[in-house]
Amino acid sequence: MAVDFFLSNVAEYPRVVSISIFTAVLCFCIVIGHVLVNSRWTNEFAVTIFIIKDVKQATNISFLANQGCLTGIVILLLSRGKSSHILRFDEELFFIYLLPPIIFNAGFQVKKKQFFHNFVTIMLFGAIGVFISFSIISAGTWWLFPKIGFEGLTTWQYLALGAIFSSTDTVCTLQVLRQEETPHLYSLVFGEGVVNGATSIVLFNAIQKINASKIGGGTAFILLWDFLCLFSTSTMLGVAVGLSTAYTLKTFYFGRHSTDREVALMMLMAYLSYVVADLLNLSGIPTVFFCGIVMSHYAWHNATESSRVTTRHIFSTISFIAETFIFLYVGMDVFDIEKWKMTKIGVKATFGVNFILFILVLLGRAAFVFPLSILSNKISSGPERLIITFKHQFIIWWAGLMRGAVSIALAFNLFTISGVTWDPVHATMITSTIVIVLFTTLAIGIFTKPLVNKLIHQAQPNNQPQTSISKEDPTTLLLSIEESTASNIIQATRSLSILLESPIHTIHFYWRKFDNAYMRPVFGGPTSSGGER
Amino acid sequence: MAVDFFLSNVAEYPRVVSISIFTAVLCFCIVIGHVLVNSRWTNEFAVTIFIIKDVKQATNISFLANQGCLTGIVILLLSRGKSSHILRFDEELFFIYLLPPIIFNAGFQVKKKQFFHNFVTIMLFGAIGVFISFSIISAGTWWLFPKIGFEGLTTWQYLALGAIFSSTDTVCTLQVLRQEETPHLYSLVFGEGVVNGATSIVLFNAIQKINASKIGGGTAFILLWDFLCLFSTSTMLGVAVGLSTAYTLKTFYFGRHSTDREVALMMLMAYLSYVVADLLNLSGIPTVFFCGIVMSHYAWHNATESSRVTTRHIFSTISFIAETFIFLYVGMDVFDIEKWKMTKIGVKATFGVNFILFILVLLGRAAFVFPLSILSNKISSGPERLIITFKHQFIIWWAGLMRGAVSIALAFNLFTISGVTWDPVHATMITSTIVIVLFTTLAIGIFTKPLVNKLIHQAQPNNQPQTSISKEDPTTLLLSIEESTASNIIQATRSLSILLESPIHTIHFYWRKFDNAYMRPVFGGPTSSGGER
Repeated sequence: MAVDFFLSNVAEYPRVVSISIFTAVLCFCIVIGHVLVNSRWTNEFAVTIFIIKDVKQATNISFLANQGCLTGIVILLLSRGKSSHILRFDEELFFIYLLPPIIFNAGFQVKKKQFFHNFVTIMLFGAIGVFISFSIISAGTWWLFPKIGFEGLTTWQYLALGAIFSSTDTVCTLQVLRQEETPHLYSLVFGEGVVNGATSIVLFNAIQKINASKIGGGTAFILLWDFLCLFSTSTMLGVAVGLSTAYTLKTFYFGRHSTDREVALMMLMAYLSYVVADLLNLSGIPTVFFCGIVMSHYAWHNATESSRVTTRHIFSTISFIAETFIFLYVGMDVFDIEKWKMTKIGVKATFGVNFILFILVLLGRAAFVFPLSILSNKISSGPERLIITFKHQFIIWWAGLMRGAVSIALAFNLFTISGVTWDPVHATMITSTIVIVLFTTLAIGIFTKPLVNKLIHQAQPNNQPQTSISKEDPTTLLLSIEESTASNIIQATRSLSILLESPIHTIHFYWRKFDNAYMRPVFGGPTSSGGER
Repeated sequence: MAVDFFLSNVAEYPRVVSISIFTAVLCFCIVIGHVLVNSRWTNEFAVTIFIIKDVKQATNISFLANQGCLTGIVILLLSRGKSSHILRFDEELFFIYLLPPIIFNAGFQVKKKQFFHNFVTIMLFGAIGVFISFSIISAGTWWLFPKIGFEGLTTWQYLALGAIFSSTDTVCTLQVLRQEETPHLYSLVFGEGVVNGATSIVLFNAIQKINASKIGGGTAFILLWDFLCLFSTSTMLGVAVGLSTAYTLKTFYFGRHSTDREVALMMLMAYLSYVVADLLNLSGIPTVFFCGIVMSHYAWHNATESSRVTTRHIFSTISFIAETFIFLYVGMDVFDIEKWKMTKIGVKATFGVNFILFILVLLGRAAFVFPLSILSNKISSGPERLIITFKHQFIIWWAGLMRGAVSIALAFNLFTISGVTWDPVHATMITSTIVIVLFTTLAIGIFTKPLVNKLIHQAQPNNQPQTSISKEDPTTLLLSIEESTASNIIQATRSLSILLESPIHTIHFYWRKFDNAYMRPVFGGPTSSGGER
């Protein structure tokens, strides 16, 4: 009777079941995540996965004790019949609904000054770096996979593998680093993550379009050129949408009537920028990211006081829910037994594939982080230049090893047809992706925090005179939030004298001048630079 | 080339096109709605419909100038090929995603004191009233439709028609009335709308389950009993979820670490209550409504200051977007030409059907508003009793005539299979529903504001000594918001002396005592009654 009663509803709106389970588990994760938040050793991702493990085990027990045992615990009752359907990773859901709010919030909350100061380095890491990593992983898998007896992938699938395993997991990385503690490092890792995500997706799409027979020496340059074009047009679209939102808010002065309208308009315009970028075959990630930056720079200042408080929290809350949702999703997918049964190759070969992929991920990242850091240090000049020390290079390399939901989404896009595959080779690639994501997230996630503590915070006093970054950290750490705000203003005043010394600072100085003279009067924002966050 | 380029994307995520168009039109509607907001003669619904009309006309023009005219305006390019798909009304989207935030926000923002003071009257209107209206519309259509030559509906479809056309449109009604201006009237119309929506949906579901052969005199009582059981269990579920959220927030004290967590938990728990109610075959509307009331009474007080500001705005913003989305949706559906072509009956019969339905809606509502108001006036006793004057009765009757998205969603559920119908009789019922919704919303929406102004505000000075409601209105109107808050406190103090005089006030007094002694220490909230909103 209970089942009939349940099914009569399911027939009407089948998604309600999955939605209920997901919402319930999300709530549970938020509460448990909060309880465990003091011990930041395991990040949220790990917590989610362990919870899912427990839930899945409970489900399996109920599955074993199959007939006649319909005792009331609702979640078990619900998940038993349809578990495989609930657990299926849906890339559309990920790319269309979950990713945009996370990236937008990242742009909205980013410390713009830090981000633009490091812009050249970020682009080096995010664009050139991905190409280096992609080449190494593609070549490595193409060379090594047949050697351990794993065959069946085409040339362009090897190329796509390179793109899949070159995307780092921004979300997870940022759970471990903290903007207040290590601002320079944070802005580098974070900025790289955003550009990196965009590059991987663009590269992946470009690879699916190129003709496999035409691959030659020029392909890499064509891809790089394509990427730069796409990135700049996407950025321009985002900036344009952000500016038009700011102009609309300023012209019509919405606050007079309703905060809801202002907030709703900002949310919808941001989302619009993402979907329009997708429609125009551009990359939505840089679009919505720069839309967020522009909105927080102009549009935010045109809103009423209550809108400002609300937008800050509304965007980060939605982003938080989307992140937790993704973690949950990936975590659920790990324990999808069907996929594991499909991989027909032996334990040894499976281990070999995963090991090769992991080593290539390590190498691919090392191959660009260290050389490009040295290049970046060479480029930046002036007396107070921001040098990336070897310790920082190590952390950048380490923290960026995590692979996340973007990798999984791309792998599902390549190797499955709407989440299902019947090819053992493809199933192996899916499970390998999941293993790599799980392993890097857990292993690297757990050790990043102690590593950051060991390398930076304890070694700090010795480094102090060496670089400007090192000067910032202990100050920020020792002071409370109010005091650090005050010290930021002091630092901002101090850095004003440095502004004219290096070329990138000169650009920044002229931009500020142009911004105050022409942009802010039209698009809004405080006319003096004192209000800058 | 442009089309190829467009289609290559559409194949990947077909929903992106609809989402883009919807988001763009939503943004446009918000801006235009804001510009037109000063002239509240036409409500937002009407504005949306007119915009859609324009968009559709432009689309049609582009459709006529079909070949070779792929000039760049994106929205036309996009909507041309797939217009029927974008316009299709999706009841799942409506019931699962759009309705819950609106109802939750209604519960969260409602003035609890007013609502519970009028609880008996609201339940009379919302529950008994719908049954009266339902009987009249069902009997009327069953008697009159064959007389004008419109046949083909089964007995239970006539019954379902009664339920469909008994649900008023809460959302639209509240756009016209204002809580500050006419608090008593607002709380009656609003409360009725919530209960009414729930009753209609419950009734509709009950009708689909009953055996047509068994319909007799007892059926009405069985339905009424079913409804009361469902309503009370749904309410209890909502209260339970709200209380557990409050308890969780209080116990774990989330604010220490993150506002996002608090806000996310409140949002997710509220949504969970709705989907769980749906899963358990209960009615989600009262569940999520009472969950909102309980959350604003207890959980809200456990959150940090920034969470409080945020939740107020986050819920109303999401509700605002959902409302605009629904208006847009219904508006788009009105101009779906395919449905109109499907109705094969003549102009005269179409006119007859619509006319009969409209007259029955008028009669059905009149048949319960006036008698039940008199009953309510009889029941309420004591010297300062809240009497519903004839003018107020007239406004309640008039404002509740609007039919909205609930009617359309139910009609689609009954007469189509996932939005498509090939039966001319069913197509006629769909178009008739749309015509009634459109007509009532426009005609009644336009005249409600002038009517309220004429009946209440101008006539106010004469009525002043007659009732306590009339005393409130001019005060509230003349004072600014801060002053009216002060006067509310004065009124609250004054009403404290009245509390013990009538039975409903006694209940309220004991509830307050119980609340302060037992509930608030456990679930949170200010311990003195001074902080009550």
